Amino acid sequence: MKVVTFGEIMLRLAPKGYERFFQNYAFNASFGGGEANVAVSLSNYGIKSAFVTKLPKHEIGQAAVAELKKFGVCTKQILLDDHRMGIYYLEKGASQRPSKVIYDRAHSSIANAQLNEFDWESIFEGVDWFHFTGITPALGSNVAQVCLEALKNAKKHKITVSCDLNYRKNLWSTDTAKQVMVPLMEYVDVLIANEEDAAKVFGITSKGTEVESGVLNPNGYKDVARQLVSKFGFKKVFITLRESINANHNNWSAMAFSDDHAYFSKKYELNIVDRVGGGDSFAAGAIFGVLNGYTDQETVDFAVAASTLKHSIEGDFNRVSLKEVNQLVQGDETGRVQR
Amino acid sequence: MKVVTFGEIMLRLAPKGYERFFQNYAFNASFGGGEANVAVSLSNYGIKSAFVTKLPKHEIGQAAVAELKKFGVCTKQILLDDHRMGIYYLEKGASQRPSKVIYDRAHSSIANAQLNEFDWESIFEGVDWFHFTGITPALGSNVAQVCLEALKNAKKHKITVSCDLNYRKNLWSTDTAKQVMVPLMEYVDVLIANEEDAAKVFGITSKGTEVESGVLNPNGYKDVARQLVSKFGFKKVFITLRESINANHNNWSAMAFSDDHAYFSKKYELNIVDRVGGGDSFAAGAIFGVLNGYTDQETVDFAVAASTLKHSIEGDFNRVSLKEVNQLVQGDETGRVQR
Amino acid sequence: MKVVTFGEIMLRLAPKGYERFFQNYAFNASFGGGEANVAVSLSNYGIKSAFVTKLPKHEIGQAAVAELKKFGVCTKQILLDDHRMGIYYLEKGASQRPSKVIYDRAHSSIANAQLNEFDWESIFEGVDWFHFTGITPALGSNVAQVCLEALKNAKKHKITVSCDLNYRKNLWSTDTAKQVMVPLMEYVDVLIANEEDAAKVFGITSKGTEVESGVLNPNGYKDVARQLVSKFGFKKVFITLRESINANHNNWSAMAFSDDHAYFSKKYELNIVDRVGGGDSFAAGAIFGVLNGYTDQETVDFAVAASTLKHSIEGDFNRVSLKEVNQLVQGDETGRVQR
Amino acid sequence: MKVVTFGEIMLRLAPKGYERFFQNYAFNASFGGGEANVAVSLSNYGIKSAFVTKLPKHEIGQAAVAELKKFGVCTKQILLDDHRMGIYYLEKGASQRPSKVIYDRAHSSIANAQLNEFDWESIFEGVDWFHFTGITPALGSNVAQVCLEALKNAKKHKITVSCDLNYRKNLWSTDTAKQVMVPLMEYVDVLIANEEDAAKVFGITSKGTEVESGVLNPNGYKDVARQLVSKFGFKKVFITLRESINANHNNWSAMAFSDDHAYFSKKYELNIVDRVGGGDSFAAGAIFGVLNGYTDQETVDFAVAASTLKHSIEGDFNRVSLKEVNQLVQGDETGRVQR
Amino acid sequence: MKVVTFGEIMLRLAPKGYERFFQNYAFNASFGGGEANVAVSLSNYGIKSAFVTKLPKHEIGQAAVAELKKFGVCTKQILLDDHRMGIYYLEKGASQRPSKVIYDRAHSSIANAQLNEFDWESIFEGVDWFHFTGITPALGSNVAQVCLEALKNAKKHKITVSCDLNYRKNLWSTDTAKQVMVPLMEYVDVLIANEEDAAKVFGITSKGTEVESGVLNPNGYKDVARQLVSKFGFKKVFITLRESINANHNNWSAMAFSDDHAYFSKKYELNIVDRVGGGDSFAAGAIFGVLNGYTDQETVDFAVAASTLKHSIEGDFNRVSLKEVNQLVQGDETGRVQR
Amino acid sequence: MKVVTFGEIMLRLAPKGYERFFQNYAFNASFGGGEANVAVSLSNYGIKSAFVTKLPKHEIGQAAVAELKKFGVCTKQILLDDHRMGIYYLEKGASQRPSKVIYDRAHSSIANAQLNEFDWESIFEGVDWFHFTGITPALGSNVAQVCLEALKNAKKHKITVSCDLNYRKNLWSTDTAKQVMVPLMEYVDVLIANEEDAAKVFGITSKGTEVESGVLNPNGYKDVARQLVSKFGFKKVFITLRESINANHNNWSAMAFSDDHAYFSKKYELNIVDRVGGGDSFAAGAIFGVLNGYTDQETVDFAVAASTLKHSIEGDFNRVSLKEVNQLVQGDETGRVQR
Repeated sequence: MKVVTFGEIMLRLAPKGYERFFQNYAFNASFGGGEANVAVSLSNYGIKSAFVTKLPKHEIGQAAVAELKKFGVCTKQILLDDHRMGIYYLEKGASQRPSKVIYDRAHSSIANAQLNEFDWESIFEGVDWFHFTGITPALGSNVAQVCLEALKNAKKHKITVSCDLNYRKNLWSTDTAKQVMVPLMEYVDVLIANEEDAAKVFGITSKGTEVESGVLNPNGYKDVARQLVSKFGFKKVFITLRESINANHNNWSAMAFSDDHAYFSKKYELNIVDRVGGGDSFAAGAIFGVLNGYTDQETVDFAVAASTLKHSIEGDFNRVSLKEVNQLVQGDETGRVQR
Repeated sequence: MKVVTFGEIMLRLAPKGYERFFQNYAFNASFGGGEANVAVSLSNYGIKSAFVTKLPKHEIGQAAVAELKKFGVCTKQILLDDHRMGIYYLEKGASQRPSKVIYDRAHSSIANAQLNEFDWESIFEGVDWFHFTGITPALGSNVAQVCLEALKNAKKHKITVSCDLNYRKNLWSTDTAKQVMVPLMEYVDVLIANEEDAAKVFGITSKGTEVESGVLNPNGYKDVARQLVSKFGFKKVFITLRESINANHNNWSAMAFSDDHAYFSKKYELNIVDRVGGGDSFAAGAIFGVLNGYTDQETVDFAVAASTLKHSIEGDFNRVSLKEVNQLVQGDETGRVQR
Repeated sequence: MKVVTFGEIMLRLAPKGYERFFQNYAFNASFGGGEANVAVSLSNYGIKSAFVTKLPKHEIGQAAVAELKKFGVCTKQILLDDHRMGIYYLEKGASQRPSKVIYDRAHSSIANAQLNEFDWESIFEGVDWFHFTGITPALGSNVAQVCLEALKNAKKHKITVSCDLNYRKNLWSTDTAKQVMVPLMEYVDVLIANEEDAAKVFGITSKGTEVESGVLNPNGYKDVARQLVSKFGFKKVFITLRESINANHNNWSAMAFSDDHAYFSKKYELNIVDRVGGGDSFAAGAIFGVLNGYTDQETVDFAVAASTLKHSIEGDFNRVSLKEVNQLVQGDETGRVQR
Repeated sequence: MKVVTFGEIMLRLAPKGYERFFQNYAFNASFGGGEANVAVSLSNYGIKSAFVTKLPKHEIGQAAVAELKKFGVCTKQILLDDHRMGIYYLEKGASQRPSKVIYDRAHSSIANAQLNEFDWESIFEGVDWFHFTGITPALGSNVAQVCLEALKNAKKHKITVSCDLNYRKNLWSTDTAKQVMVPLMEYVDVLIANEEDAAKVFGITSKGTEVESGVLNPNGYKDVARQLVSKFGFKKVFITLRESINANHNNWSAMAFSDDHAYFSKKYELNIVDRVGGGDSFAAGAIFGVLNGYTDQETVDFAVAASTLKHSIEGDFNRVSLKEVNQLVQGDETGRVQR
Repeated sequence: MKVVTFGEIMLRLAPKGYERFFQNYAFNASFGGGEANVAVSLSNYGIKSAFVTKLPKHEIGQAAVAELKKFGVCTKQILLDDHRMGIYYLEKGASQRPSKVIYDRAHSSIANAQLNEFDWESIFEGVDWFHFTGITPALGSNVAQVCLEALKNAKKHKITVSCDLNYRKNLWSTDTAKQVMVPLMEYVDVLIANEEDAAKVFGITSKGTEVESGVLNPNGYKDVARQLVSKFGFKKVFITLRESINANHNNWSAMAFSDDHAYFSKKYELNIVDRVGGGDSFAAGAIFGVLNGYTDQETVDFAVAASTLKHSIEGDFNRVSLKEVNQLVQGDETGRVQR
Repeated sequence: MKVVTFGEIMLRLAPKGYERFFQNYAFNASFGGGEANVAVSLSNYGIKSAFVTKLPKHEIGQAAVAELKKFGVCTKQILLDDHRMGIYYLEKGASQRPSKVIYDRAHSSIANAQLNEFDWESIFEGVDWFHFTGITPALGSNVAQVCLEALKNAKKHKITVSCDLNYRKNLWSTDTAKQVMVPLMEYVDVLIANEEDAAKVFGITSKGTEVESGVLNPNGYKDVARQLVSKFGFKKVFITLRESINANHNNWSAMAFSDDHAYFSKKYELNIVDRVGGGDSFAAGAIFGVLNGYTDQETVDFAVAASTLKHSIEGDFNRVSLKEVNQLVQGDETGRVQR
C-alpha cells in the first residue's frame, strides 16, 4: 500500500518550554505541516508514503528533505527552486494562556507552484491513496489549481482521496474558502474535519455544534456529517471533537460517519505536551484504518488513540509506532513504566 | 498617565525546570522584585512607568537596567554605586514539594539608600501614581525613612499611593513590621494584600481567614478589609485569595473592597508554570483598573485575569499585553491555539 | 547507625523533558540503581550508609563513585575492574504514553562479581542494617551466590536484613525468580514489595489485588502480607500501592504489616516529575523508620511521604532532607512557596 | 550629538558553536543588520542614536524593537505593518571551512517601504549625522527612492552623511548597484568601504588591490581612496583591510583618507569568535571619531580597535563600552584577566 | 555507481565543548564508526552507498538506522537482533590535553555476527566498490570470518575492495592483528593507512617514519608504501600524514602511491573542531576519486581537502557537499564568509 | 600525607562560551577559590586533603560542601552560619578582549570568621602541610587574625607552610597588603608568587621584571626570588611566568628557587580554555612535588605541567589525574587521541 500527500512543510520555530517569544535568545527548530505530518505518521506505521511539495534548494530546505527521509518518507518527487521556506513561530500556551502561532509562509516555494510542474503520472504510479488538506489550496489560486490537477489525475488512477478541511482564517476568508473548496469536494472520498471546519468552510451547522458553548453535542455532529455526505457524496466523514478545558487539559474524541451511521470513539482526558499536529495524527490514523479494512468503529478508535498519543509528544510529527497505538487501543492508558 | 514604583530589583537565579538547587551546574538568570514587576506590567499595558532604585555600577547592575529598558520602563532615576546587587535563588516546587526561595539581598545598593539621595521633586513631576510594597521599608530603617520621604513628597504632588503589604518573615519580625508600616499607612490610598498579610503585619483577622484551614472564607476577608479601611482610611482595599492544592495547582481569585462593598472576582483554576510575581501582577492590574476609571468589579476582574496569566509565565515579569488580559476577562479560558 | 546496600549502579541516559529517544542529539546523564538509591536517601537523612558494588575503572565508573561521595555515601568497599558499566535508557512518558526503559546492563562489572571477592567481614563491621533488592540476584547466578554469601555473613553479624522484591521481567522469568529468591528469604527480616511483586515472584495473590483492575483493594493486600509472613517468617512487610491514572497522575500510598496488623498510610495524589526510583525512596523511608524505632504507622507514613516527594524530583535519587520529609508528614501538602 | 541610521534589522538564526545547519534542532536567535548594528554601537559609546525602519507588528517584530531599546537606541520612528521580518541563517565556519549566510529577506516590511511614509522632518530634528549602507537601496527601487528622499532631507538639515558601501552580490548585480549608488554619492560626506566594495560597486581598482592575491597593498588602497574622493568629492574615505588566513584567523586594519593623506591603523591578529558585524563596528567607530573631532589617525585607530573587539563577541552587535575600546587603543592587547 | 561498507556503527557520547567526562550531567549523542562514516561521506557526494551491520531492535538501534537514512544511506541490509549497541565515550582534548576515547563496544549486535547471516549475493548486486576497516575483523574471530566471506563474495562480483587498516590497540594485539589481517589483504585493491598503521599491523617501517619524532619524512612513507605493494600486491596505497602540534593544531596531508610513484597532497594547517572521523573522511575521498577516474594526484588532493573540512565539523560524519570539497581543492582556504 | 588549606570558596557564575554578561539569561555555576582549588588538585593526585572555611547553612552553601566531597576533599572542619556565600561573576575573554571578574564576596560567612572559632588543634592533627593564599587575610582584619592563629598553631605542629601571595587589588591596597602580609611571612616555608605579586605586596622588583614590557626576564626573577629568601627566610620560592599574547594564547613556565639556585621549567604554548585557577593548579603541583621529595627541577616541571593542563579545563578546579600530569611531564604534548 502506498500513500501520497501533497502540501507545505514549514520550518517550525518555538521557544523552549512555556517561554514567551524571545524570552530567551533561542528557538527549538523542527519541521511540520499538515500533509507532511500525515506522511510521517503513515511511514511510522509501516505504510509506504511519499510527500510532494516544492522547497528551496538551500541548506534549510535540504534539512527538511533529510528529516522526512529519516522517517522513511519518500522525497523523490519534491521539486526545488530558489524561493523561500515557509516558517511558523509557535509559542506554547499553558493554563489559561493560549498557544500562539505566527505564520510567515507567504512567498514560499510551494506557494509559487505552477500547473504542469509536478509529474502526477509518475507520482501516482502504484499509489492507493492521496491526501491533502484545506491549507494547500489556501496558499494561492495557483496552488488551488495544482490541487485540482492532482485530484483529477488521482481519480484517473482510481486512487482514494481524503481531505482534511483544516480551515485557517489567516490564509483566506470563509467566502473564498467555500468558493475554492466546493469544486474540489467532488473528488474527495473521505472527509476529515474538526468541530469547527464544516461551519467555517461550508456553513454547515447543527444545534449544539457551536464550539464556544464548551459542551459538545454528539447528535449535532452526526447531523453535520449527514449534511456533508448528502451535499458532497463523501463515502466517509470523520469529525474530531475537542473539548478545551485549558491549554494543558483537553478532552479528545471523534466520530466516524459512514452509511448513515455514526461511530463514536472513547473519550480521552489529555495532559497536553504539544497539541499542534493533533488533527493530522488523527487523519493519518483514519487513513490507516480505512486502508487496512478496519471497521468504522475500529478506525475511529485507532485514529483517536493515535492522536491521543500525539498530544504527549513534542513537535508536529506523531513519533509513535503501530505497536504503541495498538497498546492504547487495547485499553492501557495507565502510563505505567514499560521496562 | 504615569506611574512610579520604588524598591529593589534582584538577580533571580533558578535551576531549570523542577530541578533542585545544583542538580545541574547552571542557573537560569533573570531579574525581578515586587515594585519592578509592577512597573514592567504597567509598561506592557501602555502606561508610562518609571522604576526608582539603587544598583551597583558593574555589568550585572547595568544588565538589570537594560532589562527594564527593554520593557520600556523609564530608568533615568536609578542611582548607581559600588555596593552589591541583591540576589534570590529560586527552586521551583512540584506536586507536594514546595518552591523554595533563598534570599541573598543584604548589603545591596538599595539597602544602602540614604535620605536626600533621591530627587523626589524631579521623580514625581507629572506623575499620577506611586506604588511601593512592604518589602522596601523592610530592607532597613534607612530605607524605611526614604520611603517616608517619598510618601510625603508624593502627597505634596497629590499623587495616588498604593502599597502591597507583602510581608516577608525573613526580612523582619511581625512586631517590627507593624511598627514601621503603621506610620506609612496614612499616606496610602489603595492597599493590596494577600490572604495572610493583614494578619501578619497588623494583626487584623476574622473568622475563617486562617489560611491553613485550606478553605477560604469570603465573608471573613470582607470583614478584614472593613477593619483595614476603618483603621487606616484606605480608599480601596484589594485582597488576593489563593487556595493552594499543591505546588502545581492553585485556585486564584480576589476581592476588591470600596465604599463598604466587596466585589469578588471569578475564581480560576491554575496549572502553574511559575507563581513568583503572581501578587505583583495582581497589584499592577489593580492599579491599571483604578487609574483608568474601571468600576471596582471591572478592576478586580482585570487584576485577577492579569495575574492568572502571570502564573503561566516563567520569571517575575508578567509578559502579557493589555489585549491578552482583556481576552481572558471576556471569558475565553479554553487555551485554544491562536493562529 | 550504619546501613550497607549491595547492588548495581547504572548510567542513566534520558532525553530531556518529554522528548522521545533521539528526538534531539543529547541525553541527560545521571546515575541510579535500586540499592544505590536507598544508600543516597539514607545518607540524606543523616544515616551513615555505604554502597557495595563493582564498577569499571574508567572515568565513567569513577564518576559514579564521585557522585555517591557527593551525597556522603561511603564508597570504600566498591571494587574496580575492566568490565563495563550498566546503562539504562529512559524515556519519560506523558498522559496516555507510558515511560519506557531500555536496559543495557548485561556484562557489567557487577554482573561479573564472584564469590569471595568482597570482604564481607570488613564491610559489615559496625553495621546495623543490610539492604538488597531482587534485581541483584537477577543479574546472574554468580551474583545470586554473592548475595547469599552476604546474607549469611550479615546474619552472623546480627544485622537486620531488608529486601525489596523488585521483580524485573526482562532480567529473569517468574520461575527462575522464585527458585532463586525463595532460599534467600530466610535471611530477610523486612520485606518490601509493590502491588505486583508478590504475585510475580512468589505467586501469592488475593482477591482484588489484580493491578489491572485499576482499583486497589486494601484488604486483599493485607491478606497478601499475611501469607508472606506466614510463609517466610518476615518481621515486617511493606507494600506500596500505586494507582496509575496516567503517566502524569498517580495516587500513592502504602501498607505496613507487622504482628498481624496492617497500617495504611495517607494516600497522596501525585503530579509526577519522575517516578523512577519511587519504590526505592519508599524502601529507604521504611528502613529509616524501623531503624529509628518509629511505630509501624509512623514508619509507613514517613516512607510514603518520602516517596511522594521523590515523584517530584528528577533522577533516581531522592534529593530531600529529613526536615522536608517531616514537613510533609506533618501535613503541609499545599506546596506554598517557602521563603 | 545625535545620529540616525536607516535600514533593515533581521532575525539572525544560527546553530550553536561550529555546528552545521540543522546538526541539532535549535537555533540561537538574535537580531542584526548593518545600520542597526551601527546604532547600537554608538548608543554603547554614549551617543544618542535612533534607528529607522519598518517591521511587522507581530511579536517577533516587537522583540526586535525591544532589543534595540535594551541598548538605549531610540525606536520611536520605526513604522509597523503586516509584512514579514527579514531573516538570515548563519553557519559559523572554522579553519578552512567558510561561514555561510542564507538570506531570507525578500518581501520584508522594510522592503515594502514607500515614499512619504517616513516623516524625515521629524526624524532629522536635532540630528547631527545620518548613516546608511549600500544594503538599504539594494532592497528594492522603492527603498532606493526612500533613501534618496532621506538624503535630500538630511542635506536640507545640514546633517553629515556617511555611507558604508557594503556590496551584497545576492541582492543586486554590480551594474544595478552602480546605477543606483552613484546618484546617492553626491549627498555622502564620509564613505566607508571594505577592500572589495569600491571595485564591485564603482569599478575603481588599483594595482595590488585584488583581494584574492592574499597580500594587501597599502599604496593601492591609497590610490583607490584618491580616485573615490576625486570622483565623488567625499570629505573622508575609510577602507577596512582584512587578511583572511582562515575562518578562525584574520589580520585586521584600516586606512583613513582625508585631505589627500592616508592614515593607517595598527594591524591586529584576530582569533575570531564571530566576524559578522565587523565592518559595521568599524563604521560606528569611524563615525564616533569624526563626530568627536578626533584626528584622522585617532579616528582610524579607534575604529579598528572597536572592530577588533567586535570579532571577539557573538552576534551582530558590538557589545563593548567606550572604556573598553579606549583600553585597546592605548595598547593593552594581552587579554589579561581584569579583576 | 554504488558502494557498500560493512562494520560497526556506535552510539557516541561526548560532554559538550572541552568539558571533562561528567563535568556536567549531559552527553551530546550521535552515531559513528569507520565504515558508516565512509558511507555517509559518499552519499553526501551523490554516490549511492549502503551500510551493512547488525544492530539491536530497540529504539536506540532504530535511531542509528534513521540517522543513516537521513543522509541517504541505504539501510535495507542491516540485520536486527536483541544484543546491544556499541558505545564510545569521547572527551575532546584541548591544547596539551589529549582527547580521550573509552570504548564500550564488546557484546554488541555486530560483534555477535555469524557466518551466513548476511545475504552477500543480494548485498553485492550492482555494487562497484566494497570498503571495510581493520576494526571490523578486530571485533572477534566470528566477525573476521564474516569479513572473509564478504571479501570472497565481493571478488566473485568483481567488486573493487578497499581497506583502511585503522589499528586499535584496545581491540587486539599487533600479533593477532597481523595474523588476522594478512590473509584478508589478498582481496584488497586499495589500501588506506595512517602514519602508524603499517608498522603496527604489518611491522613495515622505514627510516624517518617513527611518528614520535614529530617530523614526518615523506621519503620514508614512500618506501613504506612500496613495501606494502610489493608484499600484498595492492593497486594503490594511500597514507595520511598527521603532524600533531597540540590537540587544537595539526598539520594534515597525505600521499597516494600507485605504479611505483608517490603523489603528495598540499599540507593544511588545521584549527581542529573535532578530529574523530578524520581518517574515514579521507578514505571516502580516496574512494570517490578512484571511483570517478581521478588521477592519483587529483584523488589525494580531493581526499585531503575533504578530510581537512571534516576536522572543522562536530561529530564522526563529514557533513560536507561535493561542491564544498571542490571549492577547497580549488584553493580557497581563506574561510571568507559566503553570502 | 595530609594537607590542609584554609580560605574562601565562592560560587562562580559565568556566561557560556565567550558570551558577555547577560548576553543570554543563564549562568554556568560552579565553585572555586584559591585554597579550595589547591585542596581539590591534591585530592586528585591521591593526597588526603582537607579544606577549612565557613559557609552558609543554606542549600547553596551545602552544594559547595557536596562538590568538595565529590572530589574526596575532607569537609568535616567547615563551619556553618547564616551569612552569605561569596560570589564571583566571570566573563571569558577572547582575542584582544580580556576576561573580566566581578567580585561579590563581601559579607560572606568566611569574611565573618572570628578568632577561636576554628579548632586548629583538631584540624592539624596528623597534618603535614598547611597552605593559604594572600586572599584569605585580605578578606578582613578578623580573617587575617585567624590566619595568624592558624599559622602559629601549624608551626606548633611542625607543619610545613606554603603561601601563594595572590595579590588582589580590589580587596586591599598594596600598603595594607604589605602591612598584613609581612608579619605572616615568618611562618611560611614555601612562597609561591606570580610575576607581579612580589612587586605589589613587598615592593621587591628587579630589572626586566616589569610585566608590561611583554618579555619576561629570567635573571630578573631569579634576583627577585633571592631578595625574597634573603628578607623572609623562605626555604623555597616558586614564581610562575606568564606571557600573555592575547586572551586565547599565553606562554607558561615557572621558576623554582632553592638554596640559591634557580630551576626553570619548560615553557608551554597554551591554547586557553579557562585560565582562572591556573596559579592554584601550579601551587598544588609545587606542594605535591615538595611533599613527595621531588628535586626542585622535578617539582617545577611537575607543577608547570599540571597547570598547563589546567588551562585546558573549564572551571577553577584542575580536573586531572596524577597519571595525566606525568604523561605531560614525560614529554607528550601532541594531544593525540588516547583510545
